[in-house]
Amino acid sequence: MSTRIAILIFDELTALDAIGPYEVLSRIPGVELRFVAREPGVKRTDTGALGMEADLALGDLPDPDVLLVPGGQGNRPLLEDDEVLDWLRAVHEGTTWTTSVCTGSLVLAAAGILHGKHATTHWAYMDRLEELGAVPVQERVVEDGKILTAAGVSAGIDMALTLAARMAGDTVAQAIQLGIEYDPDPPFDSGSPDKAPPELVDLIRSSEG
Amino acid sequence: MSTRIAILIFDELTALDAIGPYEVLSRIPGVELRFVAREPGVKRTDTGALGMEADLALGDLPDPDVLLVPGGQGNRPLLEDDEVLDWLRAVHEGTTWTTSVCTGSLVLAAAGILHGKHATTHWAYMDRLEELGAVPVQERVVEDGKILTAAGVSAGIDMALTLAARMAGDTVAQAIQLGIEYDPDPPFDSGSPDKAPPELVDLIRSSEG
Repeated sequence: MSTRIAILIFDELTALDAIGPYEVLSRIPGVELRFVAREPGVKRTDTGALGMEADLALGDLPDPDVLLVPGGQGNRPLLEDDEVLDWLRAVHEGTTWTTSVCTGSLVLAAAGILHGKHATTHWAYMDRLEELGAVPVQERVVEDGKILTAAGVSAGIDMALTLAARMAGDTVAQAIQLGIEYDPDPPFDSGSPDKAPPELVDLIRSSEG
Repeated sequence: MSTRIAILIFDELTALDAIGPYEVLSRIPGVELRFVAREPGVKRTDTGALGMEADLALGDLPDPDVLLVPGGQGNRPLLEDDEVLDWLRAVHEGTTWTTSVCTGSLVLAAAGILHGKHATTHWAYMDRLEELGAVPVQERVVEDGKILTAAGVSAGIDMALTLAARMAGDTVAQAIQLGIEYDPDPPFDSGSPDKAPPELVDLIRSSEG
């Protein structure tokens, strides 16, 4: 029996939120990873520049072992979409791991899954996460029981390596890290609001939310 | 006039090779980023789990300002595909920047674009890059004139931030880094062959190539 991983996608998602974890998790031996959506077919990302195909509808995969919800402005309608929220609640009942990247945690929270749980999201959305009932923690990866949430966009790669280690052991996770040559060396050190110039923090905060 | 960026995709590409840079470069103000392929339509990634859509054929975009070639086992046929190699050579004549991620540099090399140039690739493919006429350099991002090449898979994010700074200035690149919260913190330090356990290096080397 393979371990089944479902990544929920939707129009106007942020591609890297989904693809960072996909690239890590799909390399775990014995997993079957599928992209699911409210309606199957090609979803356009938030920039409009890319189409990503969901092979399955929600009903085609009612009981994945691992759930991942990415972020992106397109997930706002999902916060009030009973079909999606009901699916998330039902899936979460049976998962081994329920996970999110960036504002994907807002959707989990809207489904009630993060009520009273420690969780994170993109740094500009911490207040929104609290409004939806979670206990926000500004860390890159937050683990609370079987729930793993990642900070903004690129943090999904770190979360997925953490998850790969939980699912398959440290050696497998390290082999995947080596395979994708994830030895990060960004040319600047401005990847968090604590490190970036304050005027850039204000700029991003005003363009989000 | 917008700056036009073309990302070449194909069946059995490695998704993160393309999507890491896409997520950075598409956020540069004034760019128009498009996915192109030998034939337009949905391409399946190397795991088989994802379809990514190319909106344009090669002939639809004969003169992009920036070219990016990702890697993945599916690019092996491209090394001998005259239609693709001719397009790459013609495009490179007019680009401001010609770039690759992972084994995408092997395709640039097969087109003769890297002859005598310093370049990099996934660490397991350095010998192959040299066979194809480039001067291999085991660094995360290598710049030689207008050619920027990145090491394996995830290195495309670092390359794209470097490129964003060249194209639009350091402040724009830093704002993008903050927007995608790229403050990497992997749970292990095994992302390069110098740092990973030797048995994992052997394992990955034998499964690639």
